[in-house]
Amino acid sequence: MSELESSIIAIIHVFHKYSGHKCKLKKAELKDLINNEMSHFIIVKNQTLNEMFADLDQNRDLEIDFQEFIVLIAMVTSACHDLFSPDHNH
Amino acid sequence: MSELESSIIAIIHVFHKYSGHKCKLKKAELKDLINNEMSHFIIVKNQTLNEMFADLDQNRDLEIDFQEFIVLIAMVTSACHDLFSPDHNH
Repeated sequence: MSELESSIIAIIHVFHKYSGHKCKLKKAELKDLINNEMSHFIIVKNQTLNEMFADLDQNRDLEIDFQEFIVLIAMVTSACHDLFSPDHNH
Repeated sequence: MSELESSIIAIIHVFHKYSGHKCKLKKAELKDLINNEMSHFIIVKNQTLNEMFADLDQNRDLEIDFQEFIVLIAMVTSACHDLFSPDHNH
């Protein structure tokens, strides 16, 4: 498996590590995931978490499913990309 | 760095491995990336590549920038997630 494929699998694994069998993240579980697994990229204060959670929770079920979670990953990856290659901002 | 953070960095690196300094992928470069780095997840025939490329190329500049590339990664990751956890389809 390539590094990219392993990375894709890792993203799925970390979601399930925190969502458990219900396959959805409650706000506290999302906060734990961010604080434990993305602390170099995101620092979450309660108010930011509330806003982030509301933005991600597109179907308003007060939980984050995988489709909603991957949007967070895409946003963070894009932000990191812009950070690491500022001269390529377009 | 966590496994998730390393995965995010790996996604950025693989994009630049194929886009080079221009930070955009031409169709041939996208095809090479998919065939070399995602062959376990996607098999690309020319017609599918043309359709995929047109869908991803939101700004119609005939190249795929990082914002457009991350949409492909999100789609493939979601498809893999549904594949690996079919009972969680919702």
